[in-house]
Amino acid sequence: MKTQHRAADLGITVGELPKGPRNKITDVPGVKVGHATISTGEYETGVTVILPPAENPFLHKMTAASYVVNGFGKTLGLVQVDELGTLETPIALTGTLNVGKVHDALVEYMVNLCRKDGIELTSINPVVGECNDSYLSHLSDRPVGRDEVFAAIASAGEDFALGAVGAGRGTVCHSLKGGIGSASRQVELDGKTYTVGVLVQTNHGRLSDFTLPQARNIGQELLERLNGSAPDKGSCIMVLATDVPLSDRQLRRVLKRCPVGLIRLGSFIGHGSGEIVIGFSTGNIVEQHPEGDFQPLVQLSEGRIDRLFRAAAEATEEAVLDSMLCAETVIGWNGHTKVSLSEIL
Amino acid sequence: MKTQHRAADLGITVGELPKGPRNKITDVPGVKVGHATISTGEYETGVTVILPPAENPFLHKMTAASYVVNGFGKTLGLVQVDELGTLETPIALTGTLNVGKVHDALVEYMVNLCRKDGIELTSINPVVGECNDSYLSHLSDRPVGRDEVFAAIASAGEDFALGAVGAGRGTVCHSLKGGIGSASRQVELDGKTYTVGVLVQTNHGRLSDFTLPQARNIGQELLERLNGSAPDKGSCIMVLATDVPLSDRQLRRVLKRCPVGLIRLGSFIGHGSGEIVIGFSTGNIVEQHPEGDFQPLVQLSEGRIDRLFRAAAEATEEAVLDSMLCAETVIGWNGHTKVSLSEIL
Amino acid sequence: MKTQHRAADLGITVGELPKGPRNKITDVPGVKVGHATISTGEYETGVTVILPPAENPFLHKMTAASYVVNGFGKTLGLVQVDELGTLETPIALTGTLNVGKVHDALVEYMVNLCRKDGIELTSINPVVGECNDSYLSHLSDRPVGRDEVFAAIASAGEDFALGAVGAGRGTVCHSLKGGIGSASRQVELDGKTYTVGVLVQTNHGRLSDFTLPQARNIGQELLERLNGSAPDKGSCIMVLATDVPLSDRQLRRVLKRCPVGLIRLGSFIGHGSGEIVIGFSTGNIVEQHPEGDFQPLVQLSEGRIDRLFRAAAEATEEAVLDSMLCAETVIGWNGHTKVSLSEIL
Amino acid sequence: MKTQHRAADLGITVGELPKGPRNKITDVPGVKVGHATISTGEYETGVTVILPPAENPFLHKMTAASYVVNGFGKTLGLVQVDELGTLETPIALTGTLNVGKVHDALVEYMVNLCRKDGIELTSINPVVGECNDSYLSHLSDRPVGRDEVFAAIASAGEDFALGAVGAGRGTVCHSLKGGIGSASRQVELDGKTYTVGVLVQTNHGRLSDFTLPQARNIGQELLERLNGSAPDKGSCIMVLATDVPLSDRQLRRVLKRCPVGLIRLGSFIGHGSGEIVIGFSTGNIVEQHPEGDFQPLVQLSEGRIDRLFRAAAEATEEAVLDSMLCAETVIGWNGHTKVSLSEIL
Repeated sequence: MKTQHRAADLGITVGELPKGPRNKITDVPGVKVGHATISTGEYETGVTVILPPAENPFLHKMTAASYVVNGFGKTLGLVQVDELGTLETPIALTGTLNVGKVHDALVEYMVNLCRKDGIELTSINPVVGECNDSYLSHLSDRPVGRDEVFAAIASAGEDFALGAVGAGRGTVCHSLKGGIGSASRQVELDGKTYTVGVLVQTNHGRLSDFTLPQARNIGQELLERLNGSAPDKGSCIMVLATDVPLSDRQLRRVLKRCPVGLIRLGSFIGHGSGEIVIGFSTGNIVEQHPEGDFQPLVQLSEGRIDRLFRAAAEATEEAVLDSMLCAETVIGWNGHTKVSLSEIL
Repeated sequence: MKTQHRAADLGITVGELPKGPRNKITDVPGVKVGHATISTGEYETGVTVILPPAENPFLHKMTAASYVVNGFGKTLGLVQVDELGTLETPIALTGTLNVGKVHDALVEYMVNLCRKDGIELTSINPVVGECNDSYLSHLSDRPVGRDEVFAAIASAGEDFALGAVGAGRGTVCHSLKGGIGSASRQVELDGKTYTVGVLVQTNHGRLSDFTLPQARNIGQELLERLNGSAPDKGSCIMVLATDVPLSDRQLRRVLKRCPVGLIRLGSFIGHGSGEIVIGFSTGNIVEQHPEGDFQPLVQLSEGRIDRLFRAAAEATEEAVLDSMLCAETVIGWNGHTKVSLSEIL
Repeated sequence: MKTQHRAADLGITVGELPKGPRNKITDVPGVKVGHATISTGEYETGVTVILPPAENPFLHKMTAASYVVNGFGKTLGLVQVDELGTLETPIALTGTLNVGKVHDALVEYMVNLCRKDGIELTSINPVVGECNDSYLSHLSDRPVGRDEVFAAIASAGEDFALGAVGAGRGTVCHSLKGGIGSASRQVELDGKTYTVGVLVQTNHGRLSDFTLPQARNIGQELLERLNGSAPDKGSCIMVLATDVPLSDRQLRRVLKRCPVGLIRLGSFIGHGSGEIVIGFSTGNIVEQHPEGDFQPLVQLSEGRIDRLFRAAAEATEEAVLDSMLCAETVIGWNGHTKVSLSEIL
Repeated sequence: MKTQHRAADLGITVGELPKGPRNKITDVPGVKVGHATISTGEYETGVTVILPPAENPFLHKMTAASYVVNGFGKTLGLVQVDELGTLETPIALTGTLNVGKVHDALVEYMVNLCRKDGIELTSINPVVGECNDSYLSHLSDRPVGRDEVFAAIASAGEDFALGAVGAGRGTVCHSLKGGIGSASRQVELDGKTYTVGVLVQTNHGRLSDFTLPQARNIGQELLERLNGSAPDKGSCIMVLATDVPLSDRQLRRVLKRCPVGLIRLGSFIGHGSGEIVIGFSTGNIVEQHPEGDFQPLVQLSEGRIDRLFRAAAEATEEAVLDSMLCAETVIGWNGHTKVSLSEIL
């Protein structure tokens, strides 16, 4: 993995909370991320998977929630997450029209995983998010499928590339090259350090609205240097992970603050931008085969939740910024090109 | 309190689960109910309060949830219940246009209560449900206010009247006299007996649709004997209490099964019938002044929730039936009359 | 298509509203339904598609809505339906683990369809519902894919089989053989006759709770004759179509009355039964390429909506009943057998 | 009304869209606003009413919607707005514990209004929003009631004061004096000019987070000059009005962009800040007594909605800013003081 210059490396400060050691979603203990990237010119796309800590998340489910900021999108699997408050598979992100194939691949992956535990699976709820990468990639051919999903899972680890990789290979952010970004923040609760981590697939925003932290509306300057601004018709999928024990209701409240990060960088959550947030807590595990009729949980004292709200907002803002700063220029289908923010800064 | 003939007394069996000793919502330990009834001919109305066990529910909040079946209604206080998952006041039920006055009375009650604990209250979220009792009562005069609310709270106990009393004094159910009904069911969990209790304020349903348990569509018979059927434009407010420890999400799922009881008796949840369910669990208390950053909770193992769904459906069905069977005939405003089901059976 | 004995043929009356000529969802003008059925013993499953009238529904979108009664299910596509209030593809129903493959097949179908209109599709939102047919079919092999979806679409027409066909081949209802059911009701509005049609994929309910209309709790009798009752862990997917011009909000209100039909037959919407309702109106078409900044719509006068509520409840109840009455006995995977209600009546 | 220096007067530009002539919510034709202010030292509070154009809004209802950003608040009346998509009364804003009394006053006002039209009202759904003004005012005494509501309505007009007046008399924004703000933006649709207007009651935000447009994080500077920052525990109620014909679903989408304005000024929607947006369109009127079974509506072509999103975000941002700039310093209960932003700039 080549060196990537992130916001922090460039001296850009986002917010006031301390970062985790990697400043990535994988600062949440046990969380892993993997990519499979397709880059052929015609196809500039891929898949990114976020793996929860449990070896088999169907058996040991994460507390989970979702928040639909703008539902003009094709994310799959939210109905059950909202009803039961749990996540039982990895989360996969990809290009819009691939979601069915990626969903089926996660089904196959979970069927295999459960067979190892002697379970013949008849019900599983994969969660698949998406952005429309059709400007740079020949989306209607749906090049991302089973092999890419399994490769992304196999490659998953605590360290992972940012920028124009995996599900971010073909995405566009504020008319510049977008991609995968990630960041983390630490919070102290009852004397212990916890982590809030965010991973984003950025494909949203107009150039003229783009604003750097400490408030430089760089978008207007860039608009004059570059070839104009397209309407906001992408999406931004945000995945939040934390080891803070939360109820699913509390987790949803935290997720609602992720868009604050997008808005601080200039987005107004455009019509075409299907912003969706998916989150899970590793601090409250729900067992598929519980021993008794009840399971103990831990809930945050509600009055302490502001620090998590701030962490979600800050980590999302920095993750979006890093998705742009770490992305190289990509020339894709039909010669369409999106320029790297780092190159023009 | 005069003898009231309830469904069980008449040999009508609703469902299969065992009932609590009183077969009322007050079988949930610590829950109390009080009425204030106004019966002057012009005004046939009142207020009914459901008190949670805690002396001061602002300090020791109940886990709570709501479910809006049909939002054509004026119930107050649900926004905060849904956001925070807690109930911090008694619940009051009354006639539609009284809700503002009853809300203010609950504010005053809570301000006084908190002053006893040395707290000057600046924020409190009373929950007030309502049915439109304008057929039998001169509703626009809003005769229910501070005195009635304080009287209802003062009279609250574990034993309480059903039928044409309190908030049920002026209501109409399936074109017959409706009112306040209540029932309870017991469930065993981890070897311990828990209770699900329901209280209803019934003001819904067409006569021709009315169906007795064990499936006698008595409505069609009665339609010929009585003077026709009015459209369904009332409401049914359902309050569910339980000592089963549930998360607010689980509690909301249980509340969603209360309308099953209404539907079994013939309702199709008409446009004008603003059905709303409000529920709380005394099994998970959320402290206003917690000691640490976290609070332990207990959550039901989700796979065991069906027995609570069944309990909610059965108790609601029997409560609706009892609201009718226990109601005497009432002659109200302008000589309008609604006949007791017991008298015509 | 062999003769099927439906509820109406057996003299069972459901409700009071008049039926359409076919008493099926296809009484809504232009709506077509097709099945592809797999029946090999190991695989007893299939797919059912509901086609809206427009040749290309992406260009001419139906007003649409969804209502999640119980979100323990894997239905795909609801996020966008809820945000934009439109349906832009056929709706497909299948077995649980096939949903990804069926989703991808609908993407391919729509890509092809749009190419005929000179459009290279980059965004499309297929809606796929599902029931868990794993008792009778080897579900984890996911035998339903592209070919079955295309075959079902090719076979679609106004007349179509009910019972153990298509997506209903392997489903179970009240511990008897379930399947595909359909019914319709007519309503008069401003002197014109409109239709509400419902199609259900039934896979829900306990045997002991099963109740025939006119209120015979046949379930208890059958429980003694048959080999006991399993828990309610299926699902019932309900699709409602109408030519009444409705806003998406009004349509959602209508959809909320579909479960009334299930409940009247004995369901209490069990935990494992992921009941979901999807609906569309052909009376308000939303153009993909509108001529101006505004489009005229027609909305029902809200006070007239009760007749649609009743139609939705009645049609759903009769559709569920027909899904059982029209289903033959099926012997599936591992010799598992589900008996036809018609055979034992 | 003394001269008030608004953001535009100070050369602060918010966004890019043109403003209406007054740059207030009353640029939407027919909308009026009135205040009643109580300023006694012990009580620094009041009520603000927003009147829709119709003489009697119960007879001619506005298309309406709400959006709960953070439900830690006591706003009354949203259940019915969400179910039926209409607003049938003025909207009133006040201090938290007054909401019951203000609700009752609106009931009385509407009962009187309908009697003039020969209607004896039995059902009405007032909408009342609130902020917690207990720092500057003795809130638990609930000084705002019937007389203040009627006075505010009587005084309503197209011109109205901003800042520390009406419901904004006692509120606090970013630890400075908040209050009532308003702004408007114009959009062109099919060659005609329409208006989006916003009115806010601001009571939210931390000082250290406060950011002026064109991105000067003035909060950090002020933090050093002033006496520190309190936690965000207020609320911001946002009311949006427009004459653009929208469906209630589209209107709700527009409302979801109002918080963008808050966030741009530094808010992260804190736990204690019960942000709620209420909106109505005068472009689609729903008649209480329609002539036929259907009513024509006009819906915006969805692809044109981005300009409304932008208008909502910009108008909210400028309204919040003006609520602060126009507010004078207030010394209230117990000598508590909040300083005017204008005075320290």
